[in-house]
Amino acid sequence: MDIAKHITLTTDFGEESHYVAAMKGVILSIHPQVQLIDLTHQIAPQDLQQTAYFLQHSLSYFPPETIHVIVVDPGVGTERSALCVELGPLKMVVPDNGCWTWLTSLSQEKPVVTQLTNSNFWRSEISHTFHGRDIFAPVAAHWSLGITPSEMGTETDQWQSLPYPVPSISGKEILGKVIAIDHFGNLITNIPSEALQGYARESLKVMIGDRVISQILQTYGQASSGEVIALTSSGGLLEIAQVQGNASTYLKLLIGNAVRVVVQSDYNE
Amino acid sequence: MDIAKHITLTTDFGEESHYVAAMKGVILSIHPQVQLIDLTHQIAPQDLQQTAYFLQHSLSYFPPETIHVIVVDPGVGTERSALCVELGPLKMVVPDNGCWTWLTSLSQEKPVVTQLTNSNFWRSEISHTFHGRDIFAPVAAHWSLGITPSEMGTETDQWQSLPYPVPSISGKEILGKVIAIDHFGNLITNIPSEALQGYARESLKVMIGDRVISQILQTYGQASSGEVIALTSSGGLLEIAQVQGNASTYLKLLIGNAVRVVVQSDYNE
Amino acid sequence: MDIAKHITLTTDFGEESHYVAAMKGVILSIHPQVQLIDLTHQIAPQDLQQTAYFLQHSLSYFPPETIHVIVVDPGVGTERSALCVELGPLKMVVPDNGCWTWLTSLSQEKPVVTQLTNSNFWRSEISHTFHGRDIFAPVAAHWSLGITPSEMGTETDQWQSLPYPVPSISGKEILGKVIAIDHFGNLITNIPSEALQGYARESLKVMIGDRVISQILQTYGQASSGEVIALTSSGGLLEIAQVQGNASTYLKLLIGNAVRVVVQSDYNE
Repeated sequence: MDIAKHITLTTDFGEESHYVAAMKGVILSIHPQVQLIDLTHQIAPQDLQQTAYFLQHSLSYFPPETIHVIVVDPGVGTERSALCVELGPLKMVVPDNGCWTWLTSLSQEKPVVTQLTNSNFWRSEISHTFHGRDIFAPVAAHWSLGITPSEMGTETDQWQSLPYPVPSISGKEILGKVIAIDHFGNLITNIPSEALQGYARESLKVMIGDRVISQILQTYGQASSGEVIALTSSGGLLEIAQVQGNASTYLKLLIGNAVRVVVQSDYNE
Repeated sequence: MDIAKHITLTTDFGEESHYVAAMKGVILSIHPQVQLIDLTHQIAPQDLQQTAYFLQHSLSYFPPETIHVIVVDPGVGTERSALCVELGPLKMVVPDNGCWTWLTSLSQEKPVVTQLTNSNFWRSEISHTFHGRDIFAPVAAHWSLGITPSEMGTETDQWQSLPYPVPSISGKEILGKVIAIDHFGNLITNIPSEALQGYARESLKVMIGDRVISQILQTYGQASSGEVIALTSSGGLLEIAQVQGNASTYLKLLIGNAVRVVVQSDYNE
Repeated sequence: MDIAKHITLTTDFGEESHYVAAMKGVILSIHPQVQLIDLTHQIAPQDLQQTAYFLQHSLSYFPPETIHVIVVDPGVGTERSALCVELGPLKMVVPDNGCWTWLTSLSQEKPVVTQLTNSNFWRSEISHTFHGRDIFAPVAAHWSLGITPSEMGTETDQWQSLPYPVPSISGKEILGKVIAIDHFGNLITNIPSEALQGYARESLKVMIGDRVISQILQTYGQASSGEVIALTSSGGLLEIAQVQGNASTYLKLLIGNAVRVVVQSDYNE
């Protein structure tokens, strides 16, 4: 019995890569009816934090009849494990490097994690540098056909975890940082907009780089072209944007840069 | 009853974007059997003219059992409407910013335009910055399942229009401009090759930048490597190319640059 | 009777191109049930060697119910033929420029090559610059529906061939070159790892640029961050990598650069 109609692919292989093509071929050879969905192949090489952010803001929108394969795998060929992860309705095949653990914050449920050990469900020859093709792809395809993780490996309660960069809150100041920059140059921070509720918008100042932003708006179109504003991202996080511009380029700010939100009464301009 | 087997996606979100992934998840959650087709996610940020050109040269090749979702949306979160557009067999879900109106030149039929107002077919929470996920994607998915635009909104005869940049023709001169540059650096102009019919090829000169091109050929392979030629694009427009080279880089010409075609007898070299 | 469930696309059109979108529309108009699979659209413009390498390392993973369309076509519009190629279970629609012939090294079987001549299976109007849309796409779609190559053209034993760059082996030295660079900057050479079997790993030195590499390892994780190592690529070729870095950038090496492997006893450091 098919348990999955769709297999999604998230990698750092690049759009030009035959690695992605090979994985697609392996999956379709095992399950020709499954629909392949590219999520992205443009994760920066081996960037686990970007992967974690990407997965946290995309996987939960998919229906349960989906298996997600993630191959961002700096430890390929070493002793790191390969895992099937079930987190509520989410099903993922991942290297054991913590890339998926930010998702646990979205779920009440405890993950069921299986360490892949049964090589009957792998390709017959396993390269040392491309487990995406030789282990992750065939395991996802077999899983989509109804083979259970328990047939493919051994349940474990040990796995690598990537800590979520929680902002620090002290008194009337929240100290966070930029954790993602989108294609438009919008700067996404780790400060949840909920943390700002309870304050009047006018009383808040957002400080980033050498800027003080007092405009916390709802959407880009509420300010003039070129203005730098703060708003709530579509993922519920504080976002800094330049209207019809690229905030990252304009402000020369990158992932990791600090952002502070202060309640105005404590801030002397 | 399914009315669409395919939903295509055209956005300016970039290949690396979790925004596209989220839209795919939302669509498949509503209509798991539909086939998702990426058209492009590489429209330049908020570039409506590029979107219009892209759609004009691609959508008409699709079968009627396709719904096209376009999210190039500088006005997201403002008062701009979201639309279902039916143009003959073409079905589109678009922001009301004119990105689709160049297509009307390909059709004899009057567009039927519906302003989306029934939030029962949207996601339950609507962000101010990501209507692609929260409105366009679910509306397309419901439409593909047979829900009609009239159930999702109200027909209107008011919509934004993007004017097509018609070349000006005076006497024996046509004045146009570059409206697109493809991946190979070929310069596509707004001058329809039909406008050049009726003249002998030898009698025409194409003037662009500081160049005068007298070779109007049929294809790239008819001139030597490195030569600059004019020909008819696959979309029926006058195109300037460098054989086995990149005309845009070589001639240092960009979108918007002027191009003139003159009948030779009027042109003193 | 359907003979193919999937049609893959490999082009040099770029992700932003409406050319790819148009091809997808043409295919689905003829065979709406087929699943379209993007392999890549990022082949460097008109780069036949990159195409050959890409196909050699990806197509064999696909199941037989797949048709592969390849459009890297510097000769479009000239006298070059369009072909259906059957190579064992592999089915391809290609321009006759040799882009597929490296695949013959993977197969015991003789290719069956059909020159496409029956314009009944093409679009009604054929542009001079876009046979991908007007010939290759419709031919692949008809083939996927069970129309045979012999109905669409004439078998031939004449076709263009792209020579594989075989490394030269003389005495205890192998002289090869870089034939591909992946997204991570790993340098893939044309030296098959089989050629190094029979020698103790410690006895081999790899010389590339001004570097002598004595570490021939199994995977990236076996050396420290920043080290330059040699290993076997997932395609079975000698590969030069920088651990957690970009070997191409770091060593300033490109496709075509020479690489030598010598048995250490013959090498005086």
